Amino acid sequence: MDEPVLLTGAGGRVGQAILDGIGDAYEWRLLDREPLPAEKVPAGVDDGDVYVADITDEEAVREAVAGVGAVIHLAGDPRKNAPWDSVLRNNIDGTQVLMSAAVEAGVERFAFASSNHAVGHYETERKPDLYREDDDFRLDGTELPRPGNLYGVSKATGEFLGRYYHDETGLSVVCVRIGNLTKDHPPREYERGQAMWLSHRDCAHLFDRCLRADYGFEIVYGISENDRRYYSIERAKEALGYEPRDNSAEFTFEGEPRGGESPE
Amino acid sequence: MDEPVLLTGAGGRVGQAILDGIGDAYEWRLLDREPLPAEKVPAGVDDGDVYVADITDEEAVREAVAGVGAVIHLAGDPRKNAPWDSVLRNNIDGTQVLMSAAVEAGVERFAFASSNHAVGHYETERKPDLYREDDDFRLDGTELPRPGNLYGVSKATGEFLGRYYHDETGLSVVCVRIGNLTKDHPPREYERGQAMWLSHRDCAHLFDRCLRADYGFEIVYGISENDRRYYSIERAKEALGYEPRDNSAEFTFEGEPRGGESPE
Repeated sequence: MDEPVLLTGAGGRVGQAILDGIGDAYEWRLLDREPLPAEKVPAGVDDGDVYVADITDEEAVREAVAGVGAVIHLAGDPRKNAPWDSVLRNNIDGTQVLMSAAVEAGVERFAFASSNHAVGHYETERKPDLYREDDDFRLDGTELPRPGNLYGVSKATGEFLGRYYHDETGLSVVCVRIGNLTKDHPPREYERGQAMWLSHRDCAHLFDRCLRADYGFEIVYGISENDRRYYSIERAKEALGYEPRDNSAEFTFEGEPRGGESPE
Repeated sequence: MDEPVLLTGAGGRVGQAILDGIGDAYEWRLLDREPLPAEKVPAGVDDGDVYVADITDEEAVREAVAGVGAVIHLAGDPRKNAPWDSVLRNNIDGTQVLMSAAVEAGVERFAFASSNHAVGHYETERKPDLYREDDDFRLDGTELPRPGNLYGVSKATGEFLGRYYHDETGLSVVCVRIGNLTKDHPPREYERGQAMWLSHRDCAHLFDRCLRADYGFEIVYGISENDRRYYSIERAKEALGYEPRDNSAEFTFEGEPRGGESPE
């Protein structure tokens, strides 16, 4: 991609995993609500390409998105127990502000960080069985949302904003329902987190594919190829060319049983 | 139902169709943003049961919903070209304010006025064929939203707020994707409107079923039994006991061809 890529929420965990993995591969614009410390900005990114702004600030967002070829949109309140007023403003309104500005600016590809919480309540009647290898229940992205919390409602709304802008304008939109991103190894003693683990390198590779693949509108799950998974990654492979390299089953923790669910 | 029913947006077209049909059958509380003229209030409804309040006014909404057994929620910006800021506030935030207040008040049934615009973009590649009797394409409420406008995005969000509150609290929620409601006869020279026509008496009967039937969470289409339909009404029949009596094909307009699509 010749044009720059705008990364919103660049200072957060997902943003940093992406920059760690593919920070050298693109010309970046970074946006975050908080000033980014130097260690969070890849070498080669000028101060002028770092925007400190609220994602609902229409003027700042319009400036940040002008001339970019693609957007990775991570900004928002990331707390699964975030109160309604916060997700209404930061996640729902913020996503609309950015998507409409992206359309106006002629952006080609828009990758939206959705969440496993958009479908959290599918687990209610099936847990903990569905977290286990011998259970073959799979969500694949064609199912209706069943948000597990108001944060999940806000993420489902972002997906359907993306569907609308894609249908209306042709903007390529991919919604990545991100699982449980942790560095170095899967979460311990937490079956659900192991089932939806996303390693840092798989995360960076997946968003790299979102910037390069040809697609129209997609909802995919963003997890590693975990034996325990109950999210299908077939669509991410087919539509994006995702080739995950990690699997939470390859990690064992000495002295700790593989089973045992802890609350997230 | 022994307890009163709260009807929001009572002064609007759908609210008035409901009150015309089943105004005598329940003890009503009416809420509207505008004062209701006397002719819009059924006989027997006291002034003290008519609330003039914005649907996002948490205190007024809490008062209006206290002690009711069921809610029919119609309030919101009804314009299909409504701007984002209005649907964000009136439709998305307003629905959350009311649903959370309803849960707090121990309400049993919640009927939410969703819209055909939540799935409007399914028509894009198929129109006008799908408006015709010999086309057997059907949406049935299990499909993912494809909003046709930002109003439709707001309605899809209301549906998933309902899904969340149902899964979380057990509140019975039915989302009715209302078609084209007109009095006396279907819209003329407008195939789409004839396909999704909802007569006044079918409308009142359908919401009556929403107040009486036993259900968990449902998404149904609110249209009459039109030969031209591309929305299934099977789920409304099965889950709610809906028995429509009208069909736009029974109306012919002298001197006017049955075909010919006009913009809505």
